[in-house]
Amino acid sequence: MAPLFERAAIVGVGLIGGSLSLAARSAGVIGEVVGVGRGEANLAIAAQRGLVDRTTRDLAAIGPVDLVVLAVPLRTTEAVARALVPHLQPGTIVTDVGSVKAPIVTALEAVCRADRPFVGGHPIAGTERSGAAAADGDLFRGSRCVLTPTAHTNPTALERVAALWRAVGATVEYLSPEKHDRALAWTSHVVHVVAYALAHAVEAANPDLFRYAGPSLRDVTRVAASPPDMWSEILLTNAAAVDEVTTGLIDELQRLRQAIATGDEATLSELLRAGNAARQRLEAVKR
Amino acid sequence: MAPLFERAAIVGVGLIGGSLSLAARSAGVIGEVVGVGRGEANLAIAAQRGLVDRTTRDLAAIGPVDLVVLAVPLRTTEAVARALVPHLQPGTIVTDVGSVKAPIVTALEAVCRADRPFVGGHPIAGTERSGAAAADGDLFRGSRCVLTPTAHTNPTALERVAALWRAVGATVEYLSPEKHDRALAWTSHVVHVVAYALAHAVEAANPDLFRYAGPSLRDVTRVAASPPDMWSEILLTNAAAVDEVTTGLIDELQRLRQAIATGDEATLSELLRAGNAARQRLEAVKR
Repeated sequence: MAPLFERAAIVGVGLIGGSLSLAARSAGVIGEVVGVGRGEANLAIAAQRGLVDRTTRDLAAIGPVDLVVLAVPLRTTEAVARALVPHLQPGTIVTDVGSVKAPIVTALEAVCRADRPFVGGHPIAGTERSGAAAADGDLFRGSRCVLTPTAHTNPTALERVAALWRAVGATVEYLSPEKHDRALAWTSHVVHVVAYALAHAVEAANPDLFRYAGPSLRDVTRVAASPPDMWSEILLTNAAAVDEVTTGLIDELQRLRQAIATGDEATLSELLRAGNAARQRLEAVKR
Repeated sequence: MAPLFERAAIVGVGLIGGSLSLAARSAGVIGEVVGVGRGEANLAIAAQRGLVDRTTRDLAAIGPVDLVVLAVPLRTTEAVARALVPHLQPGTIVTDVGSVKAPIVTALEAVCRADRPFVGGHPIAGTERSGAAAADGDLFRGSRCVLTPTAHTNPTALERVAALWRAVGATVEYLSPEKHDRALAWTSHVVHVVAYALAHAVEAANPDLFRYAGPSLRDVTRVAASPPDMWSEILLTNAAAVDEVTTGLIDELQRLRQAIATGDEATLSELLRAGNAARQRLEAVKR
């Protein structure tokens, strides 16, 4: 059976790009992958680990490909696409893996236009580690990948990108870019805000407190080990939604704090039980 | 070598009491354990799993012991101690495992008086599961146990309780009850408040959002699976400290939210980097 894509360029061979390359090649859905990046050290690791078939730092040297996956930092996505598009033959499908979709999709649809169909995507997977060294061919197994079609999306390109993600083990979901950004503000962006905030606040209160950290503090702050510059970009790119949901979380914390401060056991119990029941339902969601 | 304690009563054979019994008997530091509890079903599980040597629901039927471990819900600790003390021979050491120390230590020192020396303790270990079914003989391996001596504490009793915790794999730390309660408000109590708050707030925003939950939301809300009634007791018993640290965390969240809402990248980067650096230092703390 022919692969879904004969030749693909993955621009940005980090945790997500490198893992996708590894998984897609071992599933046989991409024939050959050229890994593109700026950092020589990271590309060397990608080559050494066999994440990609060849590497280049030159967008003009990619050669003919039928798929481009942009897996670069959010803020550079549009500029990379602008530099890349002139080197792509018409019909090449372009997709991305960015954590925020509305502004990226609007920009990339304008850059790629109809002859290089763009499909917005966001695999909901990852760890707090980064770079080619962290790539893992099983990263997407059992995960979800959200694709964010618009009125301009080419249906054939959308279906081929969906097939790629299914082939590496993800369940594909479809959301508008705006709904995606609001959903992820709750399920990921504010979670990172909380992790960074709590790690900093505990240490600021007293650095010795970490001696008394149990598993709960370690779990809740785990994602604060993620690259802060990447997260600064994500949070600012999705600022309106993150502002709104952080306010919503603060309101809920204020309700709990108030019940604790006033000894209002009935309200406290009700809020804790609601959180407990919600967590049970989260656990019951099929991954 | 003679065991540290010939015979002990563990009152409350749940996650902590049952795990301690299992670990201490297999380490040979307690000769015989009688498990005491109210719930017949839980005691039956404890007996069936061999967590204890025998079980009783009657405090008067404990017989002579040289150690009592109170591992009951916080709010019942004092009443159980009052009912139990008349049945204990002078010299019996009494200790507890409660998550909040100042009010418990004050009350128990009054109940036990000098002839049944009381030592406050809090093993920083646990999972979101509970009951005898969840007991695990390795639960305390690599953990810390905080003992909270006061001016009234008998030094020999303190040392014997410390030796018990070391024998089951814990590192023993000493803090005053008040310092313990402030430390744990940061490292555990507010962490649980956040987990319950986030699980509830996400579901309240839209129950469908759990479909887009990645590993970060699952990690951060894990401890919201803990028994809400137990946590209501802990938070209300340590209300002043929990109120103060929750306010501190809300202030930090407001700083982050404000930087995001106003596009203040310099401040946002600084806060995220501080959280990231704090998390690295938490990871570096020897468990």
